[in-house]
Amino acid sequence: MRTMKALVYNQAGQVRLERDWPMPQPAPHQALVMVHLAGICATDIEISRGYKGWHGVLGHEFVGEIAAVRDGEGSEHLLGQRVVGEINLACGDCSRCLAGMPSHCANRTVLGIQGHDGSLAEFLTLPLINLHLVPDNVTDDEAVFSEPLASACEILTQVDVQPASRVAVLGDGKLGQLCAQVLTLTGCQLLVIGRHEDKLDLLRQRGIATLLTNQARGVGEFDIVVEATGSASGFTAAVAMVRPHGTLVLKSTYAGKAHVDLSPLVVKEINLVGSRCGPFDPALRLLKQGIVAMRPLISAAYSLDDAELAFQHAQTPGTLKVIVDCRL
Amino acid sequence: MRTMKALVYNQAGQVRLERDWPMPQPAPHQALVMVHLAGICATDIEISRGYKGWHGVLGHEFVGEIAAVRDGEGSEHLLGQRVVGEINLACGDCSRCLAGMPSHCANRTVLGIQGHDGSLAEFLTLPLINLHLVPDNVTDDEAVFSEPLASACEILTQVDVQPASRVAVLGDGKLGQLCAQVLTLTGCQLLVIGRHEDKLDLLRQRGIATLLTNQARGVGEFDIVVEATGSASGFTAAVAMVRPHGTLVLKSTYAGKAHVDLSPLVVKEINLVGSRCGPFDPALRLLKQGIVAMRPLISAAYSLDDAELAFQHAQTPGTLKVIVDCRL
Repeated sequence: MRTMKALVYNQAGQVRLERDWPMPQPAPHQALVMVHLAGICATDIEISRGYKGWHGVLGHEFVGEIAAVRDGEGSEHLLGQRVVGEINLACGDCSRCLAGMPSHCANRTVLGIQGHDGSLAEFLTLPLINLHLVPDNVTDDEAVFSEPLASACEILTQVDVQPASRVAVLGDGKLGQLCAQVLTLTGCQLLVIGRHEDKLDLLRQRGIATLLTNQARGVGEFDIVVEATGSASGFTAAVAMVRPHGTLVLKSTYAGKAHVDLSPLVVKEINLVGSRCGPFDPALRLLKQGIVAMRPLISAAYSLDDAELAFQHAQTPGTLKVIVDCRL
Repeated sequence: MRTMKALVYNQAGQVRLERDWPMPQPAPHQALVMVHLAGICATDIEISRGYKGWHGVLGHEFVGEIAAVRDGEGSEHLLGQRVVGEINLACGDCSRCLAGMPSHCANRTVLGIQGHDGSLAEFLTLPLINLHLVPDNVTDDEAVFSEPLASACEILTQVDVQPASRVAVLGDGKLGQLCAQVLTLTGCQLLVIGRHEDKLDLLRQRGIATLLTNQARGVGEFDIVVEATGSASGFTAAVAMVRPHGTLVLKSTYAGKAHVDLSPLVVKEINLVGSRCGPFDPALRLLKQGIVAMRPLISAAYSLDDAELAFQHAQTPGTLKVIVDCRL
């Protein structure tokens, strides 16, 4: 059996670099992808703390190249192509798939999250239908953001953000940064509120208004608030900042139960929208056009050999995106 | 100073019938209303347990007649008219009022809930603009349901319930019953899930499908779920029953914080809609047309002299609406 290096969340609850992890075998209509770069996401960290109760190769953000295609007659032209990939592996047969919601497939596995080994490894497998070719002018260190950028784009598929909308993003981390970059393209009145002067500065450099959290008292009410802190206190603050009949977008998953007051949702008749995975095509178009900037969001890059260090680094407060080069 | 009888939640945290409570004086453009009947709502009970931190005359559901109008030149024709009333007293000047959301006025007082004495008394005051004339063929014991029935109608102003929609209502109490009666008028596929065979039977008599909570496992997924239990366990059950991208209507207020898992809202990309006060005109039309039935929802009627007993009765498990005749 061929083996490879992979960063694994093991049954003992440890995150370890395994050097002899079984190389994944593509199922029919799947591709074997040689990973170039993989990104570490807050969800990976949540998983390493027990969220989802899953064990295996971590990681769901990546850019790589197609190394093999199973049952791939006529697909030789795909070999070596640079790809990014949607993370939900759908059954295609359940009521949700048939209703056009494959990312909500009841029988799905999810790359690096649930039942399917992830991207922090030399190789991964995904169905061909999940893969998207990367435009030539998009570099690997931009393309590796496709998945979280698509997730930011998901907001615009769910909520009607208008040029006159007053919009606040809570959180200046990776997710908040991506949401802000996408939302500002609508021309809306955008304010990002966060705790880190240096991270907010990245946004100000792009002409986006910011406030430190402790300066945000009395900042008024917003038509749309995007909660991207993933904390119960962020949720409470977000509820307080939405105007009556306004929209609160929950963009973060939360590990464990939150102790929150639900009554203001009722009293203010708030429209709360849970938001998860999004469309890759718009994300890749934004990258191709160069109207979003990913590289400033990279805090550090590591080799796969140093992936354990990378995973520790990603958990250090103040860190934005940590990238792992899975060829090294 | 003229006084009256009133059921008061006092500073000592007790609910007491006061026999010499100051009679309210109408402010300009307000009417003095002699209360015929008042209803006891779950919110009144929550207030008597500390929700809102307010003390005063309880009650916000009523039907009565106009006894006086302040600055009422030309309004003599209103005297003696039977009315019901919207409970939010708006300032008319704040940004929310100017945005057409008087029921969300930032400076509002609320009848029997916040800063304005309520309806469990011989008299109350409300702005003329809050009052709605009761059609002649609607009896007092139907009209007293106008406010909660309007609140049920609010769902249809917020959510597009279609004839083919699969809809579940969780909770067979007063609010669940009213929501179910209104929702079924859309022709939707409606199922009410509750804990009380006798209450569910009221719905079945109207041709509405029901299930006992303990029989509802594996009942499938719904496009729209209305949470009308007001409990954290109801919230959790409701989240589990909504299909991905479906809508969860939160109709109950919750006293205190709830310990809930917010992640499924994100993972299933649920659209949660907080829903509170609704439009009186449609509610009165439904009553006038006789296509909703209020009387079966009355568990007991008391005199105002016995209002303390009535308030205790309303807290007895299994009770639907308790009505107080404020003329007795």
